[in-house]
Amino acid sequence: MNEVIGRVFKFEKHVFARHADLYNRLATNGQSPKALMISCADSRIVPELILQAEPGDLFVTRNAGNIVPPFAQMNGGVSSAVEYAVIALGVTDIIVCGHSGCGAMEGLLKPGALDAMPNVAAWLRHSHAAEGVVRTCYPELPHKDRLRVLTLENVVCQLAHLRTHPSVAAGIARGTLALHGWYVDIHTGAIQALDGESGNFSVVRDDQPLPIALPHAARLAAHQTLDRIA
Amino acid sequence: MNEVIGRVFKFEKHVFARHADLYNRLATNGQSPKALMISCADSRIVPELILQAEPGDLFVTRNAGNIVPPFAQMNGGVSSAVEYAVIALGVTDIIVCGHSGCGAMEGLLKPGALDAMPNVAAWLRHSHAAEGVVRTCYPELPHKDRLRVLTLENVVCQLAHLRTHPSVAAGIARGTLALHGWYVDIHTGAIQALDGESGNFSVVRDDQPLPIALPHAARLAAHQTLDRIA
Amino acid sequence: MNEVIGRVFKFEKHVFARHADLYNRLATNGQSPKALMISCADSRIVPELILQAEPGDLFVTRNAGNIVPPFAQMNGGVSSAVEYAVIALGVTDIIVCGHSGCGAMEGLLKPGALDAMPNVAAWLRHSHAAEGVVRTCYPELPHKDRLRVLTLENVVCQLAHLRTHPSVAAGIARGTLALHGWYVDIHTGAIQALDGESGNFSVVRDDQPLPIALPHAARLAAHQTLDRIA
Amino acid sequence: MNEVIGRVFKFEKHVFARHADLYNRLATNGQSPKALMISCADSRIVPELILQAEPGDLFVTRNAGNIVPPFAQMNGGVSSAVEYAVIALGVTDIIVCGHSGCGAMEGLLKPGALDAMPNVAAWLRHSHAAEGVVRTCYPELPHKDRLRVLTLENVVCQLAHLRTHPSVAAGIARGTLALHGWYVDIHTGAIQALDGESGNFSVVRDDQPLPIALPHAARLAAHQTLDRIA
Amino acid sequence: MNEVIGRVFKFEKHVFARHADLYNRLATNGQSPKALMISCADSRIVPELILQAEPGDLFVTRNAGNIVPPFAQMNGGVSSAVEYAVIALGVTDIIVCGHSGCGAMEGLLKPGALDAMPNVAAWLRHSHAAEGVVRTCYPELPHKDRLRVLTLENVVCQLAHLRTHPSVAAGIARGTLALHGWYVDIHTGAIQALDGESGNFSVVRDDQPLPIALPHAARLAAHQTLDRIA
Amino acid sequence: MNEVIGRVFKFEKHVFARHADLYNRLATNGQSPKALMISCADSRIVPELILQAEPGDLFVTRNAGNIVPPFAQMNGGVSSAVEYAVIALGVTDIIVCGHSGCGAMEGLLKPGALDAMPNVAAWLRHSHAAEGVVRTCYPELPHKDRLRVLTLENVVCQLAHLRTHPSVAAGIARGTLALHGWYVDIHTGAIQALDGESGNFSVVRDDQPLPIALPHAARLAAHQTLDRIA
Ligand SMILES: [Zn+2]
Ligand SMILES: [Zn+2]
Ligand SMILES: [Zn+2]
Ligand SMILES: [Zn+2]
Ligand SMILES: [Zn+2]
Ligand SMILES: [Zn+2]
Repeated sequence: MNEVIGRVFKFEKHVFARHADLYNRLATNGQSPKALMISCADSRIVPELILQAEPGDLFVTRNAGNIVPPFAQMNGGVSSAVEYAVIALGVTDIIVCGHSGCGAMEGLLKPGALDAMPNVAAWLRHSHAAEGVVRTCYPELPHKDRLRVLTLENVVCQLAHLRTHPSVAAGIARGTLALHGWYVDIHTGAIQALDGESGNFSVVRDDQPLPIALPHAARLAAHQTLDRIA
Repeated sequence: MNEVIGRVFKFEKHVFARHADLYNRLATNGQSPKALMISCADSRIVPELILQAEPGDLFVTRNAGNIVPPFAQMNGGVSSAVEYAVIALGVTDIIVCGHSGCGAMEGLLKPGALDAMPNVAAWLRHSHAAEGVVRTCYPELPHKDRLRVLTLENVVCQLAHLRTHPSVAAGIARGTLALHGWYVDIHTGAIQALDGESGNFSVVRDDQPLPIALPHAARLAAHQTLDRIA
Repeated sequence: MNEVIGRVFKFEKHVFARHADLYNRLATNGQSPKALMISCADSRIVPELILQAEPGDLFVTRNAGNIVPPFAQMNGGVSSAVEYAVIALGVTDIIVCGHSGCGAMEGLLKPGALDAMPNVAAWLRHSHAAEGVVRTCYPELPHKDRLRVLTLENVVCQLAHLRTHPSVAAGIARGTLALHGWYVDIHTGAIQALDGESGNFSVVRDDQPLPIALPHAARLAAHQTLDRIA
Repeated sequence: MNEVIGRVFKFEKHVFARHADLYNRLATNGQSPKALMISCADSRIVPELILQAEPGDLFVTRNAGNIVPPFAQMNGGVSSAVEYAVIALGVTDIIVCGHSGCGAMEGLLKPGALDAMPNVAAWLRHSHAAEGVVRTCYPELPHKDRLRVLTLENVVCQLAHLRTHPSVAAGIARGTLALHGWYVDIHTGAIQALDGESGNFSVVRDDQPLPIALPHAARLAAHQTLDRIA
Repeated sequence: MNEVIGRVFKFEKHVFARHADLYNRLATNGQSPKALMISCADSRIVPELILQAEPGDLFVTRNAGNIVPPFAQMNGGVSSAVEYAVIALGVTDIIVCGHSGCGAMEGLLKPGALDAMPNVAAWLRHSHAAEGVVRTCYPELPHKDRLRVLTLENVVCQLAHLRTHPSVAAGIARGTLALHGWYVDIHTGAIQALDGESGNFSVVRDDQPLPIALPHAARLAAHQTLDRIA
Repeated sequence: MNEVIGRVFKFEKHVFARHADLYNRLATNGQSPKALMISCADSRIVPELILQAEPGDLFVTRNAGNIVPPFAQMNGGVSSAVEYAVIALGVTDIIVCGHSGCGAMEGLLKPGALDAMPNVAAWLRHSHAAEGVVRTCYPELPHKDRLRVLTLENVVCQLAHLRTHPSVAAGIARGTLALHGWYVDIHTGAIQALDGESGNFSVVRDDQPLPIALPHAARLAAHQTLDRIA
């Protein structure tokens, strides 16, 4: 028997018992998480560890490559998780979180590697914009840097996709939603965050403000005109 | 600042430092998780808690309703996570894990509640088979039981979808892949598991064998005939 | 003039006249077929001959490869035929019927042969699960056996797809729908049928019970629990 | 046991035995049908009876409403059957065959009737062009006539769809493919055929030439210009 | 600064001022264009020059290759422009307009040229029927003639697609809609128009009637029968 | 005969003759437009008038609502026009141009008005993000202002979609592509342009710099890190 599977026998008595009060409150009151995290399915990236989250803290959707397909006529699991988090749960922050050594990003760099996985290859089509940026803008990088840079550009790309979702666009315009783009380095434990103003990633340090991809701030295209009306 | 987001400052020094050896090994050797878990995005369901998993143990894909769309001409995040887990990582077990109080399942029972969330409504189309079973086979249930029963039937339904994926079908035929269907009760901590033979769920107890939806066992349509050839 | 087309002149006086009473009853009362047959478009496979069916006996959908796409967000002709047969007509049995020498199955084995037929190639994507089983589980078969085995596994695969359709899933849970998987050998006239319990095909003999893929029998995930409620 | 299903026991000894020579030739030489028939899944419409066809005579695809979706980026069973028939089998004639009392056409006229069958409703979207013609051009018809007229216009509509398929368009331009549009009246046995020149249907009589939707005749847009080149 | 972009400064004072009355009328009364033109996005083809059109005269949709996808379950910009023009604006004529030296058509002839443009390649799938006609019916043409002939056949093909749209099919049946297929030669200024009866294109001359692909004329499949009813 | 259609007779002798030299150069050398304009199909909006463009100046794609669907697995006419303009033609500027009194935008505000135009309604799904912004952020606007504000927010929304296209994302990162968002007021001739920094539209005046949605400027997520490498 798969040893990991076998641990299910211990959940009720060992894990649940330890958090019984919290689970009880969550079962009675329902969940009210403060953030949505979109991260990779990779077994080494545990969103709840990155944010030291208890049950109830984080709404989480995970897939190969921490991808957010753009809003389209045929939407799937990520799109509905985003919609549910913003509209039903009212989260105020969404994080797109990439990581070092990502197998999905590696697949993008050596497409041959995906020949036996046509659906992974098709899914990664949502990262082609990032791949195109890397191919044309960073032409001379050695493979290892190329992988890291692709993963960073992929976070930028998925944040652009996120903004095409109606619920997200409305939250941004209203100023009730902030977006975050992160990169976790599994070798060092350092986390880089995207600063939307400069367009660059930099390492998160507790003596400096957190770089934010898009902070909470209303944005209305017709603002000036509205003033004139008022 | 969102308090949950702010905890990112502590990851490197507090969490990573504690597991540095493990992360180092995982960064150097790559991941080799033993199981794929498909669970709900719900903040109260943390797959790594249910299986007391360390980084590297579990490949995880999460979405609203722990849904697995059937294999189709246009596949998305869940399909590619399944393909990656089976073909690239060689997992031997896949778990579909539902839970009590699931907001996605509630949405299925009161479709009006989804009027403001058209993409969630569309996504839940992949649970219509379960909804149809409940509507026609359990006609008299009170709402609370109906929600639980729908969630159980939804796990059955998603396991049926899982079997339409080529990588899964081949793993089943070869006997290298087992499937599990679980239901976590947040009120009590009890976990129910589907027994594929009887078609029923029963509570997991450590003094009884784990009910399994589909155990490891080769299945070849032409078996007898092949014997005759040999 | 195409000789087959020219025979249309004889239908009214020769064929219809012979069955006029039956047609009259069917025109007045509408159809009430007892089974849905899903078979190949192949000209050598006439469903009405296989079951000695009169007009009114069999609802029939045919396509290259007797394929049933899984239930998805965008469904087509087979899906709607299944839905109509189960919900509007209340059929109690569905047969998926493959056959020896199937051109569609041959196309799967030599993909080059489909280069001029991209839509056939795309359609056969719904048989990739069967193809994957054959490629990985029967590695050493000579071509002719490979074709037969692929056709058998394809019937298994299409039955798995059939179960993802809400109307079928509900009929199975209720116990009002049985599924059959058949294979017709054009050389010998022998028909093999799938036994769902063993997972194998065996030849239909009139001195033995008919092997059935899934017999009529209710299946409710929450059965035990329901007993407790009652 | 379903009586129709039970007849499978008699196929080998009673039906196959009677045609053994023919089946043997077809098994050895493969099929070479002369026509493709696209007809309704309705149990009362047996294409092989309408054309008194033996095994091997007719390649047949059947679905609810004898529909041919237009050629598109995502094609299904009908499209691949058409492609296979024209390219792999080289059929010279394609028949689209509607019939009186068609349940699919009735569904189009009372959409409420399809509320429980969303996939049938979606499939019939491919008949909306016919429905629009009937709604706007025949405003005053009583229901029974409306059903017949809709079924005729639906055959016209499906023939227009058929012409969007590359293999069909090329066959028409080359003059190697003829198209037929038929309507079978189950009450009387009369068959009406579409005359492409006049755009009208008229009853098939053996003392008159068969009305043909599009006869064999080359059609090249650049004909005159080509003459100038030669 | 891009010089073309910079001209936007002159619109209000120079262009608008000259047509202020016309724009005022159009702003107050809304548009009522008489025709829909579907032409290529090519910068050399200005529909308003071809028809000496003022603002308000022509509803225009343009894309690479003047393509009209057939009506399908998932429609896009051209389909909605056609629907809006016919139903909301009541245009009486639709023109599909190709041209010499079309880059999209060239791309179809040398698919390698599209390797860096996968979406253009996919879009041109809607011209595969034309490409198939040229490949099989005009086998010996030199490249330049092949390009012109493909462009002509492409107009024929897009007109066939246009007829699959419900609004267009209804307008044709009612006799309120005429279709035109044109080809503009940028070298000579000559325009060729398709004559639907003969199926050929010929040069437009002001001393001859305009060749029309499908003139205004009611077409009802059940016409004769309706007479009998009346 | 439709008077607008009849003017085709005059093109060759009156219009072409006047520009014969330009057309000749363009026919011989091919096109090299400097900008792509994405505007509405509305007959009152003639892109070539807004920019006083000659043949050869502007690559133009037009559709109802000047919409750019986000890059997705199934792309259509706008996506391929964007790809062709950026990759094959190397345009340096893309303009998304809305206008006052837009029928498509009006349709979004009174969805009932689109009941007879299901494809227009589906197409406008790509403007739902703009509609959601207006509904939640400008709750008290009178209809006329609401229409204008929706049209402005729609331009913002389509620019966000544009950035999801790989060719555009790469051009932005490289700094070789600028984006413009304009709004033409048909009543006054005034043009408003989006300033990407402030997020607001303001009227274009020839004594002030042109507001630009996204100017030419390289943007690389990994910039600092790259410096460290060099
Ligand atoms: Zn990863
Ligand atoms: Zn849940
Ligand atoms: Zn076959
Ligand atoms: Zn029918
Ligand atoms: Zn062109
Ligand atoms: Zn407009």
